[in-house]
Amino acid sequence: MTQDEKFMKLAISEAYKAKGRTLPNPAVGAVIVKDGKVIATGYHERAGLPHAESVAISKAGEKAKGATLYVTLEPCNHYGKTPPCSEKIIKAGIKRVVVGIRDPNPVARGGVEKLKNAGIEVKVGVLEKECFELIDDFIVNLKEKRPFVSLKLAATLDGKIADYKGNSKWITSEESRKLVHILRSYHNAVMVGIGTVLKDDPLLNVRKVPADVQPKAIVVDPHLKIPLSCRLIKSRSEDLIIITTRESMLSDKALILKGKGVKLLEAGENSIELKIALEKLKGEFGIYSVMCEGGSKLAWSLLEGNLIDKFYLFYAPKILGGKGMSMFDGSFSIEDAHQIRLFSINSVSNDLLIKAYRVEAI
Amino acid sequence: MTQDEKFMKLAISEAYKAKGRTLPNPAVGAVIVKDGKVIATGYHERAGLPHAESVAISKAGEKAKGATLYVTLEPCNHYGKTPPCSEKIIKAGIKRVVVGIRDPNPVARGGVEKLKNAGIEVKVGVLEKECFELIDDFIVNLKEKRPFVSLKLAATLDGKIADYKGNSKWITSEESRKLVHILRSYHNAVMVGIGTVLKDDPLLNVRKVPADVQPKAIVVDPHLKIPLSCRLIKSRSEDLIIITTRESMLSDKALILKGKGVKLLEAGENSIELKIALEKLKGEFGIYSVMCEGGSKLAWSLLEGNLIDKFYLFYAPKILGGKGMSMFDGSFSIEDAHQIRLFSINSVSNDLLIKAYRVEAI
Repeated sequence: MTQDEKFMKLAISEAYKAKGRTLPNPAVGAVIVKDGKVIATGYHERAGLPHAESVAISKAGEKAKGATLYVTLEPCNHYGKTPPCSEKIIKAGIKRVVVGIRDPNPVARGGVEKLKNAGIEVKVGVLEKECFELIDDFIVNLKEKRPFVSLKLAATLDGKIADYKGNSKWITSEESRKLVHILRSYHNAVMVGIGTVLKDDPLLNVRKVPADVQPKAIVVDPHLKIPLSCRLIKSRSEDLIIITTRESMLSDKALILKGKGVKLLEAGENSIELKIALEKLKGEFGIYSVMCEGGSKLAWSLLEGNLIDKFYLFYAPKILGGKGMSMFDGSFSIEDAHQIRLFSINSVSNDLLIKAYRVEAI
Repeated sequence: MTQDEKFMKLAISEAYKAKGRTLPNPAVGAVIVKDGKVIATGYHERAGLPHAESVAISKAGEKAKGATLYVTLEPCNHYGKTPPCSEKIIKAGIKRVVVGIRDPNPVARGGVEKLKNAGIEVKVGVLEKECFELIDDFIVNLKEKRPFVSLKLAATLDGKIADYKGNSKWITSEESRKLVHILRSYHNAVMVGIGTVLKDDPLLNVRKVPADVQPKAIVVDPHLKIPLSCRLIKSRSEDLIIITTRESMLSDKALILKGKGVKLLEAGENSIELKIALEKLKGEFGIYSVMCEGGSKLAWSLLEGNLIDKFYLFYAPKILGGKGMSMFDGSFSIEDAHQIRLFSINSVSNDLLIKAYRVEAI
């Protein structure tokens, strides 16, 4: 790992402190280095607050003069809610700027050229892959009317998410399950199908790691089968959004749920139209990223609609056999097999985490 | 990669020239380096022929004096079919020996100490993981009365080896399928269940890469359902071993098959006992390594008997959905899920190859 990569890595970890919460803005991190030492760090906290570069430069003050700035995303060059970062960098006397990835938003691009024209040495593309992943949710939100949708599944190497009796506790390791809580914290909401609520009675919150902000909980429940005694209603009713049908919206159960502070989202007459549901989540509820955690029916419906942007597939080094529960409850023929784009493979304790993207997403 | 690793890698590629064909001896490769240049290479061709170190030293002749020897496996120190390599190394005036992995066979061990006592500088453990994999078949043969058994499956990321209509052509890439032919060449035999013969009419030989020796073909066929018109009988009958039951051995079909030069192996009264079949393959047919290529019934039977030493799991970046065919036709409960030990993950074109071992095998 080069020095540039080392400091970019630090900038990336700064950015992750607010990943998901900056949307519809991208998560960005910055580090200012002088004489080989970090003199300031910063990250973009949320839309409306200062950009990462700006935070770091303010912290560094006079010391920024002659220093190197590491920033995960190309500094912006336009007047939005804040003045352009490129100008602030030039004024601060930064000598060299190392950029992770260029801005995918054409409106914001041009920072690199502006800096170069001001005589600043600029290097682009350090840890670009990692810097891309950092803003995958931002990129999808730029292109789509719906939120960024990721799918997390925990399976055996033969693709089973539960055994033939339906037991799924626990397929993957404690470390993988902890990582899932970190991934939850990177999303605005965690979504499951009603089958998962009936079977597991989940809370869908971030528990195994600290969290300032909890993601919303979303349940896809066409016929409002959700039990009033479930933990989501008992302890998270204000954070809960239920996606249901127009039919069910007219039921007494809908009234009771609303009375408890649960939000109902109507999408479809008597069956759920997921694309519409997702668009409403973004347009009406300000949800820019959703992680779906199953079950296999919802996973299949999303896949069939080509609505999954990112796949977090955890594999435990185990085999459960063919009668176990499959990851997706549906079927393509081999000619129509759903292609995805592998992004990375990592070990998590004894498990593997394979990350992949929708082919059109990247 | 260090210089030592570079030359050890070359020694490993020498050894792979005869991988599988040296059994019950290990595959071993050697390289002699002087002044940074390779002056000789060698590998063990088959049992009874000279060891790799010996081949390389003979090739190098006088130049071996003062040189460095790279050898994938600890040089032997006992009088077997050939004199101990340790003595030959000392006599040749080799100054330094770099060893990949120590000999797992206690009878052959001690070469390292012998060399050190003779004043030779010895380094052990360079690319040890790769050198271990090279002799995995040898190690299992040391411990077990049966051959080394590997299982190759080609699946989608959701663990499907065929779509809901049974179509499996082709899930993985051309490059993965070529690699399968290389893997076949590393085994004494390629084995499938009768279902695969009926469905695919395979040849089970090495075609996509050059091969001096073809692996035997083995079909597990309890009721001798194999069609006389299949390609295995038409063009490979002399290479074919059919594992069947005592019941079927008495049938007319058995006589016809024998008449065509097919070998029949009896294992079990009216159903196949795979462990017995494998022991007979080794004891009576001199088969020391077998690669099973499916189908899911045979894969399950082997797995249930804990008879799979190594897993070659190819995953294409695709999803077929739950109604596709699973990798293993059977089921464990989550408490009894079959644990395996991940060994390595590699990209093969767009596919992934996950290699894993039986927990007790390594």
